[in-house]
Amino acid sequence: MTAELTAHQLIDKHRPTLDQALETIRTRAYWSPHPEHPKAYGENGSLSAADGKAAFDALLGGRMDLGQPGTDDWVGGEVSPYGPALGITYPHADIDVLLTAMRAGMRAWRDAGAELRAATCLEILARISARTHEFAHAVMHTSGQAFMMAFQAGGPHAQDRGLEAVAYAYAEQSRTPGTAEWTKPQGKRDPLALTKQFTPVPRGIALVIGCNTFPTWNGYPGLFASLATGNAVLVKPHPRAVLPLALTVQVAREVLAEAGFDPNLVALAPERPGEGIAKTLAVRPEIKIIDYTGSTAFGDWLEANARQAQVYTEKAGVNTVVVESTDDYQGMLANLAFSLSLYSGQMCTTPQNLLIPRDGITTDAGHRTYDEVVADLAAAVSGLLGDDARANALLGALVNPDVKARLEAASGLGEVALPSREIGNPDFPDAVVRTPLIVKLDGAKPDDEAAYRSECFGPVSFAVAVDSAADAVELLRRTVRDKGAMTVGAYTTSEEVAQAVEEACLEECAQLSLNLTGGVYVNQTAAFSDFHGSGGNPAANSALCDGAFVANRFRVVEVRREN
Amino acid sequence: MTAELTAHQLIDKHRPTLDQALETIRTRAYWSPHPEHPKAYGENGSLSAADGKAAFDALLGGRMDLGQPGTDDWVGGEVSPYGPALGITYPHADIDVLLTAMRAGMRAWRDAGAELRAATCLEILARISARTHEFAHAVMHTSGQAFMMAFQAGGPHAQDRGLEAVAYAYAEQSRTPGTAEWTKPQGKRDPLALTKQFTPVPRGIALVIGCNTFPTWNGYPGLFASLATGNAVLVKPHPRAVLPLALTVQVAREVLAEAGFDPNLVALAPERPGEGIAKTLAVRPEIKIIDYTGSTAFGDWLEANARQAQVYTEKAGVNTVVVESTDDYQGMLANLAFSLSLYSGQMCTTPQNLLIPRDGITTDAGHRTYDEVVADLAAAVSGLLGDDARANALLGALVNPDVKARLEAASGLGEVALPSREIGNPDFPDAVVRTPLIVKLDGAKPDDEAAYRSECFGPVSFAVAVDSAADAVELLRRTVRDKGAMTVGAYTTSEEVAQAVEEACLEECAQLSLNLTGGVYVNQTAAFSDFHGSGGNPAANSALCDGAFVANRFRVVEVRREN
Repeated sequence: MTAELTAHQLIDKHRPTLDQALETIRTRAYWSPHPEHPKAYGENGSLSAADGKAAFDALLGGRMDLGQPGTDDWVGGEVSPYGPALGITYPHADIDVLLTAMRAGMRAWRDAGAELRAATCLEILARISARTHEFAHAVMHTSGQAFMMAFQAGGPHAQDRGLEAVAYAYAEQSRTPGTAEWTKPQGKRDPLALTKQFTPVPRGIALVIGCNTFPTWNGYPGLFASLATGNAVLVKPHPRAVLPLALTVQVAREVLAEAGFDPNLVALAPERPGEGIAKTLAVRPEIKIIDYTGSTAFGDWLEANARQAQVYTEKAGVNTVVVESTDDYQGMLANLAFSLSLYSGQMCTTPQNLLIPRDGITTDAGHRTYDEVVADLAAAVSGLLGDDARANALLGALVNPDVKARLEAASGLGEVALPSREIGNPDFPDAVVRTPLIVKLDGAKPDDEAAYRSECFGPVSFAVAVDSAADAVELLRRTVRDKGAMTVGAYTTSEEVAQAVEEACLEECAQLSLNLTGGVYVNQTAAFSDFHGSGGNPAANSALCDGAFVANRFRVVEVRREN
Repeated sequence: MTAELTAHQLIDKHRPTLDQALETIRTRAYWSPHPEHPKAYGENGSLSAADGKAAFDALLGGRMDLGQPGTDDWVGGEVSPYGPALGITYPHADIDVLLTAMRAGMRAWRDAGAELRAATCLEILARISARTHEFAHAVMHTSGQAFMMAFQAGGPHAQDRGLEAVAYAYAEQSRTPGTAEWTKPQGKRDPLALTKQFTPVPRGIALVIGCNTFPTWNGYPGLFASLATGNAVLVKPHPRAVLPLALTVQVAREVLAEAGFDPNLVALAPERPGEGIAKTLAVRPEIKIIDYTGSTAFGDWLEANARQAQVYTEKAGVNTVVVESTDDYQGMLANLAFSLSLYSGQMCTTPQNLLIPRDGITTDAGHRTYDEVVADLAAAVSGLLGDDARANALLGALVNPDVKARLEAASGLGEVALPSREIGNPDFPDAVVRTPLIVKLDGAKPDDEAAYRSECFGPVSFAVAVDSAADAVELLRRTVRDKGAMTVGAYTTSEEVAQAVEEACLEECAQLSLNLTGGVYVNQTAAFSDFHGSGGNPAANSALCDGAFVANRFRVVEVRREN
């Protein structure tokens, strides 16, 4: 193949960005090459808001032909959580044909080397970035996120996580030199001398199993980590969130082809309703890596059964916030209210259990009883979401009927401190928009334990009365150990309590945010700086992104010769 | 505890060695701080040959009290492959008591940080190094290695592998800074600012399951990788090779105590005959990491069943050498003869299948038929081992009766090209010393396939007649893919054949040595430079040593606070 994009062009264009990413994963300071503001787009080849919307609208009701081999059918039944059916169909694959085709280009991709692979991945990300406005609508109308969140989390933040994975992958592959001269002295005899070549080689075909709520943000780390380490990548999207990953695959195939590589190194595997193709694909011998975000049940199944593959899972967890004391009561309430409301609590990082001493807490506004704290938090949420337009912009829509059913059932779990409110969306009358429910539970009551010890995914939080700070820390510990947690938060002015919470997080391996009262929320993490998950508790077996996330996606083969 | 060794002392003493190790794993040039020559010892506090022998002799017939909690019995039944029973007993543990005690010191060990942990590990290695002569006898009389090999492979080479693991562990833990300041601009508003702390935290208790043939060389990488990343380490030695690891544990406990840490961070778990304690320990919830070297059956069992742990295995494989052509026929024969003879072929890296075209090969000494190549190799082995003293020094003793039985059975597998010869050892009349057996097999005969497609561990090689170079490469490929390989060798003057072999090794993920005719052998790898195994074929799921070997032995916990 002749390449429209030469290796030199790609590397010249993207090496500075790669270097900055490599530097930032070491310093973990703030950095992003992907603008967060919608108005930053529309120049230098990127789609403006209007063009992005038009591009999205043009996709609706159409067939997205990716040019994949082995296409035996066209499938797709996405319905926006905001109401409209997308009406888009995608190529369904004859798996035997597609997997065979995907292997064909792997040798050339391997031989390209780590730097050119990284530059090619960065070109893919740059083109995705240029279409951020189009992706924003695609993410919004599959995940139910409000537009601004879909734009940011589905666009620049997801692209950051992809770039971060490329940087880690490049760093890991370049730790070993391409060649080495080894000369061992032998006293008076001639030294032993060998020339050694080291080549990073891929594992095989990687499978990315996408999720409904964050198709790009959760999909990009595994996709780009595997691709940058030389593997082919098959993307199995969630049936309700195909479009964002189909667009991603489309861009990847286009760039690979222009760079002279086989576009089949990246392919899409959407499924027919009820086909359950993930289970079939996951145990295929060609599949050597799996990245999965979703339920604990299927994540555990993958870990137990896809034994031929390296399996990276992000599953369910129960996130806890310890509320013990604060010197900024209003800031705490505002911060928590936002965390509970954002995307209707449908983030894997949203707090679920708020542990509050039953004797109340000390604040800068005086002592507050347990009931007062809960009431004040309920009021803060109500205030935040009092305006319907603002509520819609924060909440988005419930992603699927299961969340709605769970929310409705949850009000029966205990005394309702804040009922969930139905909100109308003037633009999308069919959208199911609900404010968060807060239920009071007693940490000492065995009947309540079943509720707060299970993940209740959606806009549901439990204000759990505990005996003391020590009791809260002990419950935090048990919850993380047994159920896992993507995030832990704590509010305390006591150095002793802070240390106890910190020690619990260190021992149970959970990421902790302490005393957040401003514009950073416990449920948000920033690429290059924050780890998403720890990989050390039951919520996830890997963290985004670290050395362990990339190091086993390739192996190094050594060829040594005498000089 | 008050420390006799302060953190400053340890770091000052060992930081230069750590830095050199960190540099060498990047350059992969030759380096070792551990002298290979026996005469290099005896000064600067290290044991001389005589003192080392005396120290070993003083252990015989005694009880090795490690001061471990929960000791409920004394066990041990080691008999040297050279004949004498060692008569040493070791503390058998009440596992519940011991595991509980091992956790007690983990917090302080975690809080010590990566640098002090590395320095402490290097002090352990330095003290082991000083006792290399003592360890040499311990390795010799448990593995059956000849003295010089036990000295080198069990001493400096094992210590190198341990140091390499410490270097990788330190590098991995220090990729993320201890703290970071994160400041995100917010246009006209104040920036968001967080202080983030990052702490490497251990997984838990690591289990090292030792092997009979290389207790230190194969045991040290996992032991030191786990300890350096903050874990406690329980060492379950092979019942026939307890002493070298018991000495190791003794030294580790001594250093830990002197440095002010809990000595129970490292402990020994020897077993009663038939107790099968590895299986019990491997699935204990406290055990979070397992390093294992041994049979494929038990390695596969561990991978399938020890689901609560990260499992690193080195199992069986079938190593192949392709013999296609050479421009140094005598060099090739000499090199292969040595590789087949060293430690009676009882290395996981010893070639088993020599693939030779049935039409013969081109050499600098003219064309040689298949029969001539096999006869010449047989003569080279006979010549190398013609002198009994030299033969004893190369072969060592058969490690156990299974190897002897397998060797005896193997002569019935095909036409014997070189019979195994019994050699007397004047110093140890009960030692079972045997020269390598070479059996001719036909790659095209289904009956022969069962033999050359299985690992026949011990001094047995198969000269397999193949149709062509292409046939050899295809058989090599299938063997690596299905059976795994720790090493692959090839002799060829054809660039085309070399490339085909290389491509097979890149695709099937095996480490290749090309045209070795001098003093480097396919079965030897050097720490800091060569990877031992690839972790990408069925012989092993990890390589010694790379990022993947250490990156998942710890996790990083982040604590973030608003500024």
